[in-house]
Amino acid sequence: MIGAVQVPVGVAGPLAVNGQFAQGQFYVPLATTEGALVASVNRGCKAITAAGGAIVRIVGDEMTRAPVFKVRDVTEALRVIEWIRAPSNVDKLRRAVKQTTRHGELLRIDPYVVDDNVFLRCAFDTKDALGMNMVTIATDKLADIITAELDVQLAALSGNLCVDKKPAAMNVIEGRGKNVIAEVNLPRSVTESELKTYPEQIADVHYRKNVIGSIKAGSLGFNAQAANVVAATFIATGQDVAHVVEGSTAITSILEREGQLHASVTMSSLPVGTVGGGTGVKTQQECLSMLGVAGGGNPPGTNAKKLAEIICAAVLAGELSLVAALATRDLAKAHTTLGR
Amino acid sequence: MIGAVQVPVGVAGPLAVNGQFAQGQFYVPLATTEGALVASVNRGCKAITAAGGAIVRIVGDEMTRAPVFKVRDVTEALRVIEWIRAPSNVDKLRRAVKQTTRHGELLRIDPYVVDDNVFLRCAFDTKDALGMNMVTIATDKLADIITAELDVQLAALSGNLCVDKKPAAMNVIEGRGKNVIAEVNLPRSVTESELKTYPEQIADVHYRKNVIGSIKAGSLGFNAQAANVVAATFIATGQDVAHVVEGSTAITSILEREGQLHASVTMSSLPVGTVGGGTGVKTQQECLSMLGVAGGGNPPGTNAKKLAEIICAAVLAGELSLVAALATRDLAKAHTTLGR
Amino acid sequence: MIGAVQVPVGVAGPLAVNGQFAQGQFYVPLATTEGALVASVNRGCKAITAAGGAIVRIVGDEMTRAPVFKVRDVTEALRVIEWIRAPSNVDKLRRAVKQTTRHGELLRIDPYVVDDNVFLRCAFDTKDALGMNMVTIATDKLADIITAELDVQLAALSGNLCVDKKPAAMNVIEGRGKNVIAEVNLPRSVTESELKTYPEQIADVHYRKNVIGSIKAGSLGFNAQAANVVAATFIATGQDVAHVVEGSTAITSILEREGQLHASVTMSSLPVGTVGGGTGVKTQQECLSMLGVAGGGNPPGTNAKKLAEIICAAVLAGELSLVAALATRDLAKAHTTLGR
Amino acid sequence: MIGAVQVPVGVAGPLAVNGQFAQGQFYVPLATTEGALVASVNRGCKAITAAGGAIVRIVGDEMTRAPVFKVRDVTEALRVIEWIRAPSNVDKLRRAVKQTTRHGELLRIDPYVVDDNVFLRCAFDTKDALGMNMVTIATDKLADIITAELDVQLAALSGNLCVDKKPAAMNVIEGRGKNVIAEVNLPRSVTESELKTYPEQIADVHYRKNVIGSIKAGSLGFNAQAANVVAATFIATGQDVAHVVEGSTAITSILEREGQLHASVTMSSLPVGTVGGGTGVKTQQECLSMLGVAGGGNPPGTNAKKLAEIICAAVLAGELSLVAALATRDLAKAHTTLGR
Repeated sequence: MIGAVQVPVGVAGPLAVNGQFAQGQFYVPLATTEGALVASVNRGCKAITAAGGAIVRIVGDEMTRAPVFKVRDVTEALRVIEWIRAPSNVDKLRRAVKQTTRHGELLRIDPYVVDDNVFLRCAFDTKDALGMNMVTIATDKLADIITAELDVQLAALSGNLCVDKKPAAMNVIEGRGKNVIAEVNLPRSVTESELKTYPEQIADVHYRKNVIGSIKAGSLGFNAQAANVVAATFIATGQDVAHVVEGSTAITSILEREGQLHASVTMSSLPVGTVGGGTGVKTQQECLSMLGVAGGGNPPGTNAKKLAEIICAAVLAGELSLVAALATRDLAKAHTTLGR
Repeated sequence: MIGAVQVPVGVAGPLAVNGQFAQGQFYVPLATTEGALVASVNRGCKAITAAGGAIVRIVGDEMTRAPVFKVRDVTEALRVIEWIRAPSNVDKLRRAVKQTTRHGELLRIDPYVVDDNVFLRCAFDTKDALGMNMVTIATDKLADIITAELDVQLAALSGNLCVDKKPAAMNVIEGRGKNVIAEVNLPRSVTESELKTYPEQIADVHYRKNVIGSIKAGSLGFNAQAANVVAATFIATGQDVAHVVEGSTAITSILEREGQLHASVTMSSLPVGTVGGGTGVKTQQECLSMLGVAGGGNPPGTNAKKLAEIICAAVLAGELSLVAALATRDLAKAHTTLGR
Repeated sequence: MIGAVQVPVGVAGPLAVNGQFAQGQFYVPLATTEGALVASVNRGCKAITAAGGAIVRIVGDEMTRAPVFKVRDVTEALRVIEWIRAPSNVDKLRRAVKQTTRHGELLRIDPYVVDDNVFLRCAFDTKDALGMNMVTIATDKLADIITAELDVQLAALSGNLCVDKKPAAMNVIEGRGKNVIAEVNLPRSVTESELKTYPEQIADVHYRKNVIGSIKAGSLGFNAQAANVVAATFIATGQDVAHVVEGSTAITSILEREGQLHASVTMSSLPVGTVGGGTGVKTQQECLSMLGVAGGGNPPGTNAKKLAEIICAAVLAGELSLVAALATRDLAKAHTTLGR
Repeated sequence: MIGAVQVPVGVAGPLAVNGQFAQGQFYVPLATTEGALVASVNRGCKAITAAGGAIVRIVGDEMTRAPVFKVRDVTEALRVIEWIRAPSNVDKLRRAVKQTTRHGELLRIDPYVVDDNVFLRCAFDTKDALGMNMVTIATDKLADIITAELDVQLAALSGNLCVDKKPAAMNVIEGRGKNVIAEVNLPRSVTESELKTYPEQIADVHYRKNVIGSIKAGSLGFNAQAANVVAATFIATGQDVAHVVEGSTAITSILEREGQLHASVTMSSLPVGTVGGGTGVKTQQECLSMLGVAGGGNPPGTNAKKLAEIICAAVLAGELSLVAALATRDLAKAHTTLGR
């Protein structure tokens, strides 16, 4: 280690969040050198807050690791699948995990087979930790037991079906980290006053850009700028920044409904923690404190969940603001004047 | 702006690079709180350097912006395609771009049609700048001309076919930013001494994990940890960190050939710059200086290209090291002892 | 060859088509054992015809083959790219192609590089033939010249970047075979009388199913049943049935606009022909004759284009009908009564 | 219905299969007008049979239907997830399914949420039937119960997460229909005598084409010609031909190992049946009889499983033969002489 780089931090907000864990108004720290980004998220926060806040819920929460095992042939693969589906075997593995971690818990193991490879996707509850370290050590233990019990060899402790830091349909479909959804219904008046355009126009741009454009591009991300907000909040709060990859697969949905604007962001894989890793650096801890989520939650796991809810709402703010800016053709102007 | 966060910086190297623009040995700054990551990349650097260095070449270099236009119906779409394919019209647009930027240059416009939407993917040479700002302003100008000449309406200045900060096959196929490839042939002796295992084993883990695992996961990233190295070098050198998304789609290839280990990383979309944005922050500029790429290059564009070559070689180092660690089952151990 | 299987053929129509090549009303032959499919397409045809017909245009038309060459290293890859971009070299290759085919014509060669592989995607105009045979023989000739001129080896005449009979973003983005779009605006009255529901409802089901559902599934197909119509028309008209794969990636778009229903299907890769292959079998030729496209067109290429326009319009009919059936919840009923 | 088209049928084999359900040597009917295809598969059959046959196993078997429900907001979505995860509710649904079908059985329901949409992917055992009809009617029943019990509305009985006849990562990951794997180890001598080349060469072409080429193309199919063999066997045996889409996502793996050639095909979604649909047409039934799988199996389900094993082994034959032909550069020659 030779020193440190400094990344400027701006704040957007207040952002009203009606989550299960995050309730109230929050000021969201964004580490970025783009002034335009802070301004953009801030505008979205104003619109959401003016509409009474975003409803946010976590519909899934698990950290995964998927070791890959070599088998002699596919008949042996079938035997592994059978073994792993027996509840008594999973119980044994669950107890073994308990010896490696105080906080983590094995939830489930799903087998996948290709050629002579068996991937076992192991899902854990990691409470307030991101948990990559925890699940890697736990999976290492599981691999010992499995190779002792079955005629298989461990090829790699991570077989890329986890999926960690690679954009993948697996995570879009099954989720990884927090699977979280934020939504808001903006009255027409709020849309006009805060976003300077109409529900129909924002919905039209959303459909042409986020839907049709992303489809044509063969994209796994159906959003406008989720990665920008994820990157900025992740750096600020000491997350593993490479996980912006997972955040970039967010699915934004914006529709005009009975004159209002319905908008939501579904983030199936948002891996965050409030303990461990970069969350312990002093400046990052201050940012976590601003959100009331520094350290472990009470009960355990609630701080990380609260952080995920806030970030997801902030992503929603960024989506509304950028799509509105495109609808009113203000993007180039913002770049010119705010120096992005 | 309320202050700044500090991200610790470690250094890996020396890393021998035989690029077209980067030639010599480099010390690569990595901004990360994971000590294990620096150690991992460092090990890969040693292996590559012991083998005489990585050969690196840039096979494509362009920054893109793809506005989406509404057309009356598909007959009008055909007319837009025809217009845009006439060389005289592209020349006119090229000259218009010149009025908006001193450094940038319009290279090409490719049309794509879905329903009543025409996407025009505009590709620019942006020299040493990342160029998002530059191409956004230039495209805004182009849109004015196109809407004046044709019976179309601008729906959005970015139609998600750019593709910016969303993982997408479009960028894997056609490239965005630098399209760069690094490769190395490690003698068996170097593989054994530096990576503590055999070419056959590393190649086997690569195939099961990076190839088969990623295929089964429906992934757009066929690598082990490209995003880690991209994130750490991007934060250190003041890049737009959300672009780690593009970096995560790297295609790693590792094969045993005549007793040696052939390894490469193909990064079709690595958007980097050495001027503008976060490159101007003092600590980040120091990191750029360490690599000899601070500010604009001479001739223009060469500094950004050199930076891309170095980062790609560093990603290759990270791939070799992690796949080798998985082959020797050292991943969990590294997490335990190096506190990732 | 031991004999033949018989596949029942039904007819849907009349279907009004306002294409560039297909103009008038058509009866579309569907080879299928599902009575429900014929009834479904027929209902869509009635709606489209009642609305004055579908506007259809071909926005791209080329058949591709992409050989893969091994190169010594990436510096050699750069040399290949340069060579292939020189107009004089492409001219030489174009002339060479002329010696292998009377009808075909080389349009363009696009290079792609990964590791030590250079893929050259060669695009041809194949007139009324599907042209796989033609382009394979032509590409074999090109490969001879390229390996003689450059320090490369042919690894495989098809490198899977063609992309033939595999679902791929490459074809969605760049197109293969006919890139064709059909659209229609259904008045509210027609929607109600023929599809038994309202524009808003059909658009709502489209968005939830074809857009959101397909996104969540990590799908490359954003439609309801394009493959059904492609398979049935392809068997009936003697096409290569494995190409239903390409057809399945159709992008359907259905929106309520000013009280009307706007619906379209964009099929970027619909490979069809009216000469060669299965088009010569007597029963299949009768089906082609029903559509007025048996044999080569005058001028050459117009029959295949006309066939593509009709099939695309028929796919649109199938989409409208099925999405409407889902909106009114008639799918299970149709299965029960029509014995799918 | 106005008549029928005739599709010529050829036969490849004998093909030795060591499956769980298919044991012995089979002559595989292929409905196609491409003589080259029959010759190609036949050559692969000879190689496999000379090596003692292909080992084949079914690692998953279920037919799915995924209705999409609208919910008021994401808090309601959470309630649906909870309800569907209660074993007593699933039991109730399972009993309800029993009233709609004699043979089918509900296995599992997996919930997925995006925006205000809840998709319930319902998995069924459909025995010897393809089962689309069966599961559609059963799901219609389930939807009645769910909308009565919960505050949700059925948006569409199929929400495209099934995924039926669209290429999708969902099916690659989770499987649909038969999830079946065929593998063979070809001795070097067999490779040389039957495939006219060496294990190293076939493995090399496989890697460059099926792996690297497909990755670069953004493909969901990592094979050479699976769709050809699926289409030809599906037409011959009366399957729903549009399901060639699912078959085209096969993952082929070919490696040189200790001098031998290891080859496999993993087909995660091969939907086939031996009763219902087109299997009842006389000529198709004869083809099923050739394979000993006409009608329902004893015990139920075994005929469809046996058919899937045979088709998967035939696909493996096609892969070996085509990749070998590319390695020896015989593809263009085959097109010329066999008139493909």
